[in-house]
Amino acid sequence: MELRIGRMKPGPLNALTDVPGVKVGHATIDNDRHRTGVTVVLPCEDDIFRSKMVAACHVLNGFGKTAGLMQISELGTLEAPIALTNTLNVGLVHDAMVEYMCRQAEEHGYSLTSVNPVVCECNDASLNDIRHRAVGQEEVFAAIASASADFVEGDVGAGKGMTCHDLKGGIGTASRIIELDGERFTLGVLVQSNHGSLRDLRIDGKPVGEDVNRRIREDTPDQGSCIMIVGTDLPVTSRQLGRIIRRCSVGLARLGSYIGHGSGEVMVGFSTANRIPAEEKIFSLRCIHDGQINAAFRAAAECTEEAVLRSMLKAGRVTGYSGKVRRSLSEFIDA
Amino acid sequence: MELRIGRMKPGPLNALTDVPGVKVGHATIDNDRHRTGVTVVLPCEDDIFRSKMVAACHVLNGFGKTAGLMQISELGTLEAPIALTNTLNVGLVHDAMVEYMCRQAEEHGYSLTSVNPVVCECNDASLNDIRHRAVGQEEVFAAIASASADFVEGDVGAGKGMTCHDLKGGIGTASRIIELDGERFTLGVLVQSNHGSLRDLRIDGKPVGEDVNRRIREDTPDQGSCIMIVGTDLPVTSRQLGRIIRRCSVGLARLGSYIGHGSGEVMVGFSTANRIPAEEKIFSLRCIHDGQINAAFRAAAECTEEAVLRSMLKAGRVTGYSGKVRRSLSEFIDA
Amino acid sequence: MELRIGRMKPGPLNALTDVPGVKVGHATIDNDRHRTGVTVVLPCEDDIFRSKMVAACHVLNGFGKTAGLMQISELGTLEAPIALTNTLNVGLVHDAMVEYMCRQAEEHGYSLTSVNPVVCECNDASLNDIRHRAVGQEEVFAAIASASADFVEGDVGAGKGMTCHDLKGGIGTASRIIELDGERFTLGVLVQSNHGSLRDLRIDGKPVGEDVNRRIREDTPDQGSCIMIVGTDLPVTSRQLGRIIRRCSVGLARLGSYIGHGSGEVMVGFSTANRIPAEEKIFSLRCIHDGQINAAFRAAAECTEEAVLRSMLKAGRVTGYSGKVRRSLSEFIDA
Amino acid sequence: MELRIGRMKPGPLNALTDVPGVKVGHATIDNDRHRTGVTVVLPCEDDIFRSKMVAACHVLNGFGKTAGLMQISELGTLEAPIALTNTLNVGLVHDAMVEYMCRQAEEHGYSLTSVNPVVCECNDASLNDIRHRAVGQEEVFAAIASASADFVEGDVGAGKGMTCHDLKGGIGTASRIIELDGERFTLGVLVQSNHGSLRDLRIDGKPVGEDVNRRIREDTPDQGSCIMIVGTDLPVTSRQLGRIIRRCSVGLARLGSYIGHGSGEVMVGFSTANRIPAEEKIFSLRCIHDGQINAAFRAAAECTEEAVLRSMLKAGRVTGYSGKVRRSLSEFIDA
Repeated sequence: MELRIGRMKPGPLNALTDVPGVKVGHATIDNDRHRTGVTVVLPCEDDIFRSKMVAACHVLNGFGKTAGLMQISELGTLEAPIALTNTLNVGLVHDAMVEYMCRQAEEHGYSLTSVNPVVCECNDASLNDIRHRAVGQEEVFAAIASASADFVEGDVGAGKGMTCHDLKGGIGTASRIIELDGERFTLGVLVQSNHGSLRDLRIDGKPVGEDVNRRIREDTPDQGSCIMIVGTDLPVTSRQLGRIIRRCSVGLARLGSYIGHGSGEVMVGFSTANRIPAEEKIFSLRCIHDGQINAAFRAAAECTEEAVLRSMLKAGRVTGYSGKVRRSLSEFIDA
Repeated sequence: MELRIGRMKPGPLNALTDVPGVKVGHATIDNDRHRTGVTVVLPCEDDIFRSKMVAACHVLNGFGKTAGLMQISELGTLEAPIALTNTLNVGLVHDAMVEYMCRQAEEHGYSLTSVNPVVCECNDASLNDIRHRAVGQEEVFAAIASASADFVEGDVGAGKGMTCHDLKGGIGTASRIIELDGERFTLGVLVQSNHGSLRDLRIDGKPVGEDVNRRIREDTPDQGSCIMIVGTDLPVTSRQLGRIIRRCSVGLARLGSYIGHGSGEVMVGFSTANRIPAEEKIFSLRCIHDGQINAAFRAAAECTEEAVLRSMLKAGRVTGYSGKVRRSLSEFIDA
Repeated sequence: MELRIGRMKPGPLNALTDVPGVKVGHATIDNDRHRTGVTVVLPCEDDIFRSKMVAACHVLNGFGKTAGLMQISELGTLEAPIALTNTLNVGLVHDAMVEYMCRQAEEHGYSLTSVNPVVCECNDASLNDIRHRAVGQEEVFAAIASASADFVEGDVGAGKGMTCHDLKGGIGTASRIIELDGERFTLGVLVQSNHGSLRDLRIDGKPVGEDVNRRIREDTPDQGSCIMIVGTDLPVTSRQLGRIIRRCSVGLARLGSYIGHGSGEVMVGFSTANRIPAEEKIFSLRCIHDGQINAAFRAAAECTEEAVLRSMLKAGRVTGYSGKVRRSLSEFIDA
Repeated sequence: MELRIGRMKPGPLNALTDVPGVKVGHATIDNDRHRTGVTVVLPCEDDIFRSKMVAACHVLNGFGKTAGLMQISELGTLEAPIALTNTLNVGLVHDAMVEYMCRQAEEHGYSLTSVNPVVCECNDASLNDIRHRAVGQEEVFAAIASASADFVEGDVGAGKGMTCHDLKGGIGTASRIIELDGERFTLGVLVQSNHGSLRDLRIDGKPVGEDVNRRIREDTPDQGSCIMIVGTDLPVTSRQLGRIIRRCSVGLARLGSYIGHGSGEVMVGFSTANRIPAEEKIFSLRCIHDGQINAAFRAAAECTEEAVLRSMLKAGRVTGYSGKVRRSLSEFIDA
């Protein structure tokens, strides 16, 4: 099945990395004790700390431990890469990102005494021995080093231990092209999918989950989280970007989730179109008219729905450290 | 078609008024110049001002003129009935509600010098000469006087001039039963539906809108609003109720909306389970454990999806003052 | 006493109207039954509906009935003048503003079917027979017609019935000059002061309220509201403006208020520096760097503290319809 | 000077730990390279994870890296102790708290796979070599082990490297007694003070900072942060507690701060009065009527003002790793 959700046209890679300059990297820990890892989103190739990006965040359901949102809400900027990992590893990954940013600053010839890493998480305790925080500085640095526009989806990096609609979840992505005023822009979404119950799962409206559940009886209550990272080169303010990323929830709802209680459903967005000049006291910010924002809304919804499905279809079957098996959606669907 | 969305069981009326004590009334203005009106939700039969109700509100998209939300956000209480009307009539309906509440207070033997009416609105300018604010005190008082547990849906009251997914919208409702800890509770939703584009419309996942649009070519951009009033007798705090009403957005998304820019998508919720005692300095509030909230989340999602569909199916075809025709979904669906 | 709070330099009028283009008008109702009125802030001389202004709002305490904030929060724009009045008159003033805007649109050659008036309020029930909503279309239109850069402060317009720190409150204003990058900007604040208790009142840190209370024994609990309208020609985004207007709370705190429960403390801000072009799909917004925002923070704090004091010092003693007397702070202070 | 701010009566220790069950502990790192540390607030003696506490948080200015607020906002509960440290140490302290909570759970006979530590921070880079994250698991565990109702204020724990109004800042605390309905409650505040500029400093309204600045010329722009932890045994909902902790800002304003741009001003509050029962599906929450909340508002304001002053007066002069000297306010004030 060549999966295609919605009406809009995807970018060449159908990935967050269709947004020029964006790279994604993984480090996966896959052994007897651990099915976990870290995934990093690098929003640009140059120094993001001194040339910050317009950003926004939104908490759809806040039962989660994501760090770094407070400053984005206040200042509307991103000043470091975004890392995704497992719930109890937020601290160590945060510390590793601080170390990475301090070293980057030194390489650029300045000394950094404050930085706001963004570390998102979902809980992989059903497959991974989560109390033993396996993701450290080595894995974070490896993920950053491996970052590329061309990256793998499924049960890799922070997606290794994920469970989505009671099947295997993981990392997925999609992108859409937005034509506006004679220009061509891209909006992309990357998800770490770890939410939903099997019976509720729908694919493009079809109640596939009920069918699969009749075969494997795996349905459990809607629990767990979904992280949604949205990147775009559309020129927008932080307020506009906040409106756009909220539409990711539409994609989750169409897949059958009703955004369960036990979930940290978090959206983080950035726009590469405007960089905040470190030295200028007054400057110009390019932005779209809000009356033109609907295409970006639709793109965010379509990308999220498709990215979650891809995270499931690209993931293989995984057996956890305690024997729990998560099957792949691809076992039940002609892909 | 006996429409039934989701897994949960509806209440006996499948209406917001399945919540004990809740009544709904309409006044409709239907003449050459006007297709508009007012709908009121009375949350209880006794004096709500002196025995306030736990309440919450949420703004999914704030391109709208709803009045009264600020105080609900701060105090978590409702102290007056809720009125729904057209966009430019908010002021006059607000004034009428103030008059109503002042008179009620006098009847109860006290004098009221402050009250917070909640007036929600959608824009009916395509069918109604909206600049001439037709809904006044007479209509508001008539709607209140007519309020009953058994009320009409479709193109009545505030629903008279509504347009939903480019077809006729209006007032719709649904309810769901929640069993918890050996007790039986009800959650109901009433919508004023005025949003969405035709091509996007889906019924229980099926892309019905594409089919209808091939026949009548009515598709326009997603614009306009949806008001969602949620009532329940589930004992909840304002914070919990805020979490519940946010799940109404799931219902809108499943019908095909991506919550367009030009919309005032507003949820207002109240719980009849706890009344705030006017005289006690310290009191007890009964509430569910958040770990038990998922049934209410699912109920809010299912009710909203079903209520919007009912608002469309129960509405007849309406021709506006300038000749614009809005067809009924029931013309295209076996109901 | 020539009152001067803080370190910064005021504009030539020391008023909100030092911001070029801004005008303020009053209509006062002063008779046996009523001590009330309406005050309007006109942010510009041209058509604000089609050339909207960057705006922001903040609710410090939401026990109030202000209408129009939801859309400002979502879209970050102001599209109509701002009106201030008494609590129960919000509806009628809202309707009058709709009528005004419809007529303005017609004069400009277009037809308006949606508009978001901003109507703020404080409660003047201790001096005014508030249940009889005395402020109607006539008063609103008169206030608009009288608007000027040079306007009266004290017990006029919406300030007629106000009570502040148990003395006479009303309308007050102040402005500050901000030099940035070789340019000169103005930030001004206008308040409708109706909050605080007498004993808590401090003037520039001195516990004046305790002294006055020893003489007149008027101290009551901190109740009532304060509306703060902030205008500036500093180029800012809605997010930045939201940060700025929040600092108005500093001014209230320094005067001795702890922002009591029974208050609607609301800030609304607009910047005249950027107008949103109706026709352009992508445009440029000029804005300051957040690192330069501190001067505007300080200005908002200083202006608010000074404006509230001026509202009290400029107001005369007023006797209410039921005989209640509110003395002027100027009776106790050499002014 | 026996410092006493406001009208209300302090508790016996005039400390956050006047709230029964609350303990505070420090670990200080004081050597050639580091002036830093960690301070922990333990809200109760029993298992907070399985018997969560009603909690709330508020971000006054979000230029900071505090972790753990998202879940408090959503669920209104605290499930772990609160730790305060320096900005770049948030990650390691977060990880240490996870380890602590995992071990605690094991001791209590269960296995924990998710927990939400709250880690607040201020930046001590002017005195401490912050890039070398000196605070690790050893220090966090030591701080917890040392926790007591009777604790030291000033330049200890997370307060070691703080700078407040250009003088030495640190940890400070205060409490107030609230009599309500024949019962006696306590509200306490603990601050980590690291904000403000010298010239702006006022003590109980007096412009002390201008005087001191004339002598030592230290005034710099208002930068840096203030963390405010509020505990109480007053029975409140999360919504009510959120209203109460917002009044801490009044205390900061009265000391002369206008809440500068470069600050992470964060309030976290908890109430020991209600514990959330892990096993009950429906339960009763005791709470005050909002009409009785003003005493708690005033207490939060008074405690914060006094706690910041105490953090300064109790701190000695400290010389940083690079030679920077921060003098103590006590050098200039008779204490």
